[in-house]
Amino acid sequence: MVHDPAGRRRTGLVVGDRSQWWIHEFSEGTDLIGLLAADAATREEAADAAARADGLSPSDVVLLPPVYPVAMRDFLTFEAHVEGVGKGMQGAAGVPAEWYAAPSFLFMAPHAVTGPYEDVAMPPDTERLDFELELAAVICRDVRNVTPAEAGAAIGGYLVMNDWSARDVQGREMKLGLGPSKGKDFATTIGPWIVTADELDDCRDADGFLDLDMSVRVNGVRVGGDRSAGMGWSFEHLVSYASRASWVKAGEVLASGTCGSGALAEAWGRSGRLAPPPLRIGDVVEMSIERLGTIRNRIVASGETVPPIVPARRRVPEEVQSMAGPEGNLIELLDRRAARTRRAP
Amino acid sequence: MVHDPAGRRRTGLVVGDRSQWWIHEFSEGTDLIGLLAADAATREEAADAAARADGLSPSDVVLLPPVYPVAMRDFLTFEAHVEGVGKGMQGAAGVPAEWYAAPSFLFMAPHAVTGPYEDVAMPPDTERLDFELELAAVICRDVRNVTPAEAGAAIGGYLVMNDWSARDVQGREMKLGLGPSKGKDFATTIGPWIVTADELDDCRDADGFLDLDMSVRVNGVRVGGDRSAGMGWSFEHLVSYASRASWVKAGEVLASGTCGSGALAEAWGRSGRLAPPPLRIGDVVEMSIERLGTIRNRIVASGETVPPIVPARRRVPEEVQSMAGPEGNLIELLDRRAARTRRAP
Repeated sequence: MVHDPAGRRRTGLVVGDRSQWWIHEFSEGTDLIGLLAADAATREEAADAAARADGLSPSDVVLLPPVYPVAMRDFLTFEAHVEGVGKGMQGAAGVPAEWYAAPSFLFMAPHAVTGPYEDVAMPPDTERLDFELELAAVICRDVRNVTPAEAGAAIGGYLVMNDWSARDVQGREMKLGLGPSKGKDFATTIGPWIVTADELDDCRDADGFLDLDMSVRVNGVRVGGDRSAGMGWSFEHLVSYASRASWVKAGEVLASGTCGSGALAEAWGRSGRLAPPPLRIGDVVEMSIERLGTIRNRIVASGETVPPIVPARRRVPEEVQSMAGPEGNLIELLDRRAARTRRAP
Repeated sequence: MVHDPAGRRRTGLVVGDRSQWWIHEFSEGTDLIGLLAADAATREEAADAAARADGLSPSDVVLLPPVYPVAMRDFLTFEAHVEGVGKGMQGAAGVPAEWYAAPSFLFMAPHAVTGPYEDVAMPPDTERLDFELELAAVICRDVRNVTPAEAGAAIGGYLVMNDWSARDVQGREMKLGLGPSKGKDFATTIGPWIVTADELDDCRDADGFLDLDMSVRVNGVRVGGDRSAGMGWSFEHLVSYASRASWVKAGEVLASGTCGSGALAEAWGRSGRLAPPPLRIGDVVEMSIERLGTIRNRIVASGETVPPIVPARRRVPEEVQSMAGPEGNLIELLDRRAARTRRAP
């Protein structure tokens, strides 16, 4: 998706190779997710029609996120990452047995997607800004209770994701056992465009897992990378799991989770030191996945933000907590307190 | 939002009281979120126009979820609930210090909303189905970096939420430190309708917190309840917190988290016993919040689901894990393994 020279938001076909490419606009009003779900002939037709017109050069357009997701899920599928981060964040070595049983995921902030080359503002409240190198799939059909074999038809294409993470904010959230959310809601870069699933048919290993080289550079220096075949499950498995007694909808983005060595936190976990250092203003993070392209974002100073909110109003004074025994007592006490509150002016 | 007798999806105005009410349809194509954001005069006009036509009786319509959220967040704002559940789920008494600092939240499955009187299918893989009694707000304007004082204008109204939870599934997810998601993605009941924020102006305590009676019954027997003033923060605070360096968008639903004694898990945590028992097929869960109305759902047998997926494909054999020392070694080993995989047929 692009802003064209006139500032209109348009979808287009990317033609070219790594060094030189053009965007050929699809006809006005083209729904990209619908096009991904269409049969091969319809897609060819749309591509041919787009290619007949002149292409726009990269300097003429601003690349936007290829999709504004209706929901975004982040899985935890790379065993190597779980093992490495576990050492730092939970203080425990090894991979929990629960990891092997099923591909856990969380719902991400869906409104935080940023374009592939867009600047990312340093979020507030963090001294430990980090990146996460991930492979992500774009869903093009609503599915529910699909097998892995059936799930393939719901995957329209793939793209690169950087799930920016404020590790200190995230750490505080995870102590409460939910999320993390606020540690990741300021930006999620996706792009540079969507490569349709059929274009990657020759990149699958014997088990059908996509096997693509993934790498991340900070200020031009490679700091991590892996191969996507390091995932514990294929994307077809992820869709099937998510769809069990639940909807996975067209326009969703499902991400692999961080690949092995795809985040600074993993190095921090393994070494016990903040090396390489957390990201700073001015740093440029560049992520590439074989066949999918490169996203590249510079960290810039944050704008003004609203002040942090006040701490919680306490409702359970310590004496009530210690009096609260078996079920019921506390509730009764709370009821009495609530009645007092109501009488207050 | 309702399905009218002809099966069309329509929005309407609810007129009446607890015992008797009617729905007066808004003019076709009315956008409920837009109407919530409109000024008082515009809303009055729409209400007057709707009220002039005959009302539909509850037996003529099927009440749908009042909104299909563009995102849904669940906060953790009731100290009493955190204290009670903590005893059971994390095995630790007391409320973590992090809870008082900021209202943590997670993003919920946005496509799982169910109507206020709709049956809920027993999800697969659980022996511990539970409910969560919550108060929720509907956002009517896009906001970013707003103060609590500014946030009020973004809250269009309130409704009752039941955040159904499979505690055993959720427990496995939480061991991995993210979500929970799959333990909660099969159903979230919201309704019965939206009560606009201005209608609750007389229900605020001295600090401006909404103070409404909340209660939950299973098969007609009251099993829990609290007052909404037990929240550690007001909804205006929640919106402000969520909006810090991030978007909160029109059509989102923000929920309070479970109120004190608003879930069976809290009783389980306090007593160390599964009493009252987990929900069973045939149970009817009814939740009421003062001024907002009642939602009521029966648990029914689940339909067919897709089989569970296979366990993870292991990529880090134990000997590699134990060899992996400081940063770098593991990555190198994985690269070598990946190269082997690529050569496999």
